[in-house]
Amino acid sequence: MVYKYIDIVGTSSTDITDAINNAFQEASKTVKNIKWGELGRITFRVEGSGKLEYQTEVRIGFEILKEHK
Amino acid sequence: MVYKYIDIVGTSSTDITDAINNAFQEASKTVKNIKWGELGRITFRVEGSGKLEYQTEVRIGFEILKEHK
Amino acid sequence: MVYKYIDIVGTSSTDITDAINNAFQEASKTVKNIKWGELGRITFRVEGSGKLEYQTEVRIGFEILKEHK
Amino acid sequence: MVYKYIDIVGTSSTDITDAINNAFQEASKTVKNIKWGELGRITFRVEGSGKLEYQTEVRIGFEILKEHK
Amino acid sequence: MVYKYIDIVGTSSTDITDAINNAFQEASKTVKNIKWGELGRITFRVEGSGKLEYQTEVRIGFEILKEHK
Amino acid sequence: MVYKYIDIVGTSSTDITDAINNAFQEASKTVKNIKWGELGRITFRVEGSGKLEYQTEVRIGFEILKEHK
Amino acid sequence: MVYKYIDIVGTSSTDITDAINNAFQEASKTVKNIKWGELGRITFRVEGSGKLEYQTEVRIGFEILKEHK
Amino acid sequence: MVYKYIDIVGTSSTDITDAINNAFQEASKTVKNIKWGELGRITFRVEGSGKLEYQTEVRIGFEILKEHK
Amino acid sequence: MVYKYIDIVGTSSTDITDAINNAFQEASKTVKNIKWGELGRITFRVEGSGKLEYQTEVRIGFEILKEHK
Amino acid sequence: MVYKYIDIVGTSSTDITDAINNAFQEASKTVKNIKWGELGRITFRVEGSGKLEYQTEVRIGFEILKEHK
Amino acid sequence: MVYKYIDIVGTSSTDITDAINNAFQEASKTVKNIKWGELGRITFRVEGSGKLEYQTEVRIGFEILKEHK
Amino acid sequence: MVYKYIDIVGTSSTDITDAINNAFQEASKTVKNIKWGELGRITFRVEGSGKLEYQTEVRIGFEILKEHK
Repeated sequence: MVYKYIDIVGTSSTDITDAINNAFQEASKTVKNIKWGELGRITFRVEGSGKLEYQTEVRIGFEILKEHK
Repeated sequence: MVYKYIDIVGTSSTDITDAINNAFQEASKTVKNIKWGELGRITFRVEGSGKLEYQTEVRIGFEILKEHK
Repeated sequence: MVYKYIDIVGTSSTDITDAINNAFQEASKTVKNIKWGELGRITFRVEGSGKLEYQTEVRIGFEILKEHK
Repeated sequence: MVYKYIDIVGTSSTDITDAINNAFQEASKTVKNIKWGELGRITFRVEGSGKLEYQTEVRIGFEILKEHK
Repeated sequence: MVYKYIDIVGTSSTDITDAINNAFQEASKTVKNIKWGELGRITFRVEGSGKLEYQTEVRIGFEILKEHK
Repeated sequence: MVYKYIDIVGTSSTDITDAINNAFQEASKTVKNIKWGELGRITFRVEGSGKLEYQTEVRIGFEILKEHK
Repeated sequence: MVYKYIDIVGTSSTDITDAINNAFQEASKTVKNIKWGELGRITFRVEGSGKLEYQTEVRIGFEILKEHK
Repeated sequence: MVYKYIDIVGTSSTDITDAINNAFQEASKTVKNIKWGELGRITFRVEGSGKLEYQTEVRIGFEILKEHK
Repeated sequence: MVYKYIDIVGTSSTDITDAINNAFQEASKTVKNIKWGELGRITFRVEGSGKLEYQTEVRIGFEILKEHK
Repeated sequence: MVYKYIDIVGTSSTDITDAINNAFQEASKTVKNIKWGELGRITFRVEGSGKLEYQTEVRIGFEILKEHK
Repeated sequence: MVYKYIDIVGTSSTDITDAINNAFQEASKTVKNIKWGELGRITFRVEGSGKLEYQTEVRIGFEILKEHK
Repeated sequence: MVYKYIDIVGTSSTDITDAINNAFQEASKTVKNIKWGELGRITFRVEGSGKLEYQTEVRIGFEILKEHK
């Protein structure tokens, strides 16, 4: 088996878990067979109102199926 | 005072906080006098359905009491 | 533009997100023009009852306005 | 909002700034909505004549627009 | 010259060298002009029988040729 | 599910793969349900004859089954 | 002798050297006896026009003179 | 509770422990409620005579009391 | 030969060397054949009186003898 | 006893173990009393034919004997 | 092929690129067959006048030719 | 000015400060114009009697004088 990584930053105005989920949702639009992920840096953008936008870097691993030979 | 570390991975299908709590709960079954912890790597396992399992590495510090001399 | 960092540890007995928010709230009492932040180490203090206090190191960036010349 | 990273190595026989700019120029040929970047490792290849080729790893973040749904 | 990185995880039930070679073989199916690579994390999956699957993260660099202008 | 880590250094006078396998073999004598591992530092001891002893730090993860409650 | 650090992010639309110099200039407005500095992360903000803003984190060390006792 | 960090470099011509103590002594002149610290880089300046000056970076954490609201 | 690590935090109100020695003394109560160690993080707890407690994380390696087969 | 380090990159077209051995062989031509080593970065150069050259950075420690006073 | 590293700090009162070039120039006085380099820490010394001296740590790799056998 | 680094491991059966001093003493036998140093890894060898040998990796920087042209 061979796997590949893509690096996605999910964001959310709610919390960290929501930002992570958004990263996985976006990834699932372009790659299949997602198997695992790892959380990288967590950052915050502060909007004018003082509200936080949570930003989570997620490295996502997916399997490359043999059928594409 | 002397302390010791154990390294535990707690998991949860809910969120990161729940996974951390599970790690501490498991630790408290085998060691006493837990004093602090530190979060390590956060990873995710993606189940067939696309649902995430949150996995949190927690390094847990507990005091070694003198009474066991 | 020039920015400056302050390093704050927010705590919470609820969860990580709450601890992060407390760090930003404290920062906003002493500096203005907060623009972004980055999460550092996450640690836990275990109280006598076994309950966790969540502790989040947050590096907070704010803009230094030219008007203070 | 969701962002994605690509990792590019720009090179230059002039200096580091030129190598960084080349990395962004190449990235802009294949992705749109580039928002930010971060400098990684800086390395040098020494040609036979002793002249340096400056090589800069740049991690480039771009926004994934919703329109591609 | 400009280079780009892709991150691939090669696996093998034989040893680490074989896992690395598999990562390069997979990469060569989708990109050309591969020039170098760097070994990242090495991990192991233990199958039910106790046998190890060797997993090697490899960051692979390839040249982006000017012809695609 | 909850997992725990142990850190073992396997050695071999043959090669790195053999040293890793020895670490897993030793671990399997004292813990059950080993699921995965990660390679840490690789070091070498040079014997008087100049021959190398390969030393591999391996962090080994095993599942803690609920039955021990 | 005792020294203290402040962390400043200098920016420039010209290049990295200019961004570093701006960080030191800003620091010299609020602290005296600056002795040394160390470069941290280098990042880039991409403006709408595609032009780069160079951002340099600089940790600046200054001597705390005994006279303020 | 909320905590803040300051980064101080203590020096000593005696040894590392003395340099650390000097960092804490200086910190206690400007902030109250110091709770903990962490040792960073240890460096040495060699004077003309060959004698070492021990330099210790110490990150010092202190509690921000609510009374200053 | 196979080795195992345990992670211990020794403390002392005297200095760092004493804290390290305490860690090794505690380790020698529960494991035999200790061969080497490596110093990890050094931290300080500040008591009400301002006095420092020196805390040293020490990773201790010991040989697992074949006799326990 | 006092030790010194040299940093050598061994290469091989066979595998990682062979590259490491070549680094030690080269070191033994210029220094004596080699005692240990530590593996650093592992990289790969891809030749035109697609064949890999394995490159291993090895930090090698040797004892400095008192006799050279 | 076998390579060796030397670690040099080049300085300049002009900019970072000039400091790097000075490191390579110095290296070329004592070793031959320099093939590549990697930039390490970048630091600054502030002179009395406030002017910066740029200091760049460069790890330089050179080939050890077989002829010296 | 140009500087060079050498990496030395000083040892002592007394304490860390003594081990560091031994590293500088050894360095001063072979290089001149030593200007500064930085402490790396601190390790311990445990002798049969249980006594510790303190081992300190020290990176030592010295100035390369122009006169050797």
